Amino acid sequence: MREVAVIGVGMIKWGELWEKSLRSIFVEAAMNAIEDAGVDRIDSMYVGCMSSGLFVGQEHLGALLADYLGIAPIPATRIESACASGGAAFRQGFIEVASGLSDIVLVGGVEKMTDVSGGGATFALSTAADQEYEVYNGVTFPGLYAMMARAHMERYGTTRKQLALVAVKNHDNGSKNPHAQYQMKVSVDQVINSVMIADPLTILDCSPITDGAAAVVICPLELARKISKKPVVKVTGSGAATDAIAVHQRKDITHLAAAEEAAQRAYKMAGIKPSDIDLAEVHDCFTIAEICAIEALGFVETGKGGPATEAGETAIGGRIPVNPSGGLKSKGHPVGATGVAQICEVVTQLRGEAGERQVEGAKLGLTQNMGGTCASCVVHILEVA
Amino acid sequence: MREVAVIGVGMIKWGELWEKSLRSIFVEAAMNAIEDAGVDRIDSMYVGCMSSGLFVGQEHLGALLADYLGIAPIPATRIESACASGGAAFRQGFIEVASGLSDIVLVGGVEKMTDVSGGGATFALSTAADQEYEVYNGVTFPGLYAMMARAHMERYGTTRKQLALVAVKNHDNGSKNPHAQYQMKVSVDQVINSVMIADPLTILDCSPITDGAAAVVICPLELARKISKKPVVKVTGSGAATDAIAVHQRKDITHLAAAEEAAQRAYKMAGIKPSDIDLAEVHDCFTIAEICAIEALGFVETGKGGPATEAGETAIGGRIPVNPSGGLKSKGHPVGATGVAQICEVVTQLRGEAGERQVEGAKLGLTQNMGGTCASCVVHILEVA
Repeated sequence: MREVAVIGVGMIKWGELWEKSLRSIFVEAAMNAIEDAGVDRIDSMYVGCMSSGLFVGQEHLGALLADYLGIAPIPATRIESACASGGAAFRQGFIEVASGLSDIVLVGGVEKMTDVSGGGATFALSTAADQEYEVYNGVTFPGLYAMMARAHMERYGTTRKQLALVAVKNHDNGSKNPHAQYQMKVSVDQVINSVMIADPLTILDCSPITDGAAAVVICPLELARKISKKPVVKVTGSGAATDAIAVHQRKDITHLAAAEEAAQRAYKMAGIKPSDIDLAEVHDCFTIAEICAIEALGFVETGKGGPATEAGETAIGGRIPVNPSGGLKSKGHPVGATGVAQICEVVTQLRGEAGERQVEGAKLGLTQNMGGTCASCVVHILEVA
Repeated sequence: MREVAVIGVGMIKWGELWEKSLRSIFVEAAMNAIEDAGVDRIDSMYVGCMSSGLFVGQEHLGALLADYLGIAPIPATRIESACASGGAAFRQGFIEVASGLSDIVLVGGVEKMTDVSGGGATFALSTAADQEYEVYNGVTFPGLYAMMARAHMERYGTTRKQLALVAVKNHDNGSKNPHAQYQMKVSVDQVINSVMIADPLTILDCSPITDGAAAVVICPLELARKISKKPVVKVTGSGAATDAIAVHQRKDITHLAAAEEAAQRAYKMAGIKPSDIDLAEVHDCFTIAEICAIEALGFVETGKGGPATEAGETAIGGRIPVNPSGGLKSKGHPVGATGVAQICEVVTQLRGEAGERQVEGAKLGLTQNMGGTCASCVVHILEVA
């Protein structure tokens, strides 16, 4: 397998983009990535998107977006793995470049969620869970993660305040990110006293509904060294894994087994251990999700995600900065775009271009993107080449 | 890139499978492929599916189906390219094995279309077209292909009878396929006099709404030679391409430019020319589609698809047998499964296991799977190793 590098990243401001369509936000992010990469051709494209069918009545995104980006007739394929669609799309691009089939590959992610008709955003998102055994019986994602939070609190003594502190930290980071949907800071009291969604999770424990897109350009490392005018970032590890889709079929609902498995595969490929990582973008779709994720990734011991957050270990400047971008919580969570945006943030950090939210001296970063309640997970490791 | 072989194929009887769910038909086909391959492990899985979100309210099929197949925690990813989802999924499996990342990969395709609620099957299928410029203005797929048929008749003198003869041939072939949804023969008169759908296309010019699944197991050629008890079939070419998604934006609506481009890429990789092909499974979603496809693939001259069909050149026993399985027309068209089933048929033919519909002496086969009105297309070339 050839070595692979990221040579371009493209973000746009995320939010409720009523005046823009799915195709226009995708093209905007993709053009930013192509411009950043400084390339004049694309050989193949992947698009991560969870549910454009239910959100905007449009499938066939590979062809649609290659057409609107003006790069047809190249191969263009849409990848879906619920909220991990972006990370999964990046993995497919990585595999294609590594295989030798294509040199310059564009990977984008997109989701247009605010102007949904029909069953609404909650129904569309619920299709990431087991429709027959979970959704039919009335559960929603806030409900599922609330159960995971309650179990974590019971078993490990995780406190309500510790959950809230994840939101406080990530909004603090997001306030320094011009692309973030919500750039306001929040306090522990504000989080705990905001509208209850599914006990113990209030609305400020939940990531928002977002319109957004993100894109990256990748190529063989050897080519990157020749053509890139920016610090080259190498993809040293890629791991993916699955788990029982329905939460009730898992041995331990507080443990993200697919995240652990995907991370172990990525660590092995990269030849590193969790303590080598300088910063991570993890999938904080709910505050409890970040606590479970940092445990599964091996950054903290099992059950210690709450205390580590409270001690500031995951803040910028802490032992292992998590979600310097603001995470899903503050930056927003256009589900198919999230995994690609995580790559954009890590590359930006490794290049030293993250401005106010820069993690000093970052050389090695990780992204963790999960689908549903982590029935699928994709982990990538990136390193300054 | 490593050489890749198909070592297992799995089909089920397609049709209106009211008593079975999406997950159960997928598992059935996958188990058939695994048993045929004789392997005891799977390293990675791809699932081709167009719109399970709109058809059955379920996304996240990679995780769901890996779980129900009992193969989690392996990586499992859903691929979507409208009606070319199956062919696109096969291509991703091919790339992953070729890259060296995984050895034994399962590629399945599935669609459950009959018990759809909400907007119905016609709406779900329409999401393969341009929602903003085509569907919003009232077009449907029968309407789009009817326009292509009218233009082909005007420009090249293609006759109504020639269109009908595609259906007659494919039903004739399908009558010999125990997995086909419709195993009855039809006559030219029956086709022409059946219910009008979109002039000139009647219902017997259209592929049906189908529940179905199909699966294959692939691995490196070197490994296949060691473990396979059946004739080994090598994947020698893989090509994919895109085109303007909206038909009105194309230079010539009778020409499937993406099919030509994908085929040229596949021929180049395989080092062959169209006349080397012994049989082909092509995407006959409508009778006119087969006529346009055999022209774009280079089997006949542009404009000569109708006369070639009338002369029996594409029948089993003809110069270039097309759709010996019965094609989408008779075998059925569960959109995400179609491209994988095409691979199953070609492998079955190349192994000499196709029974009554066997193409004698077949050594080299081609599959052509397209999305929408061929805004995306995937072509594969398979050869007895």
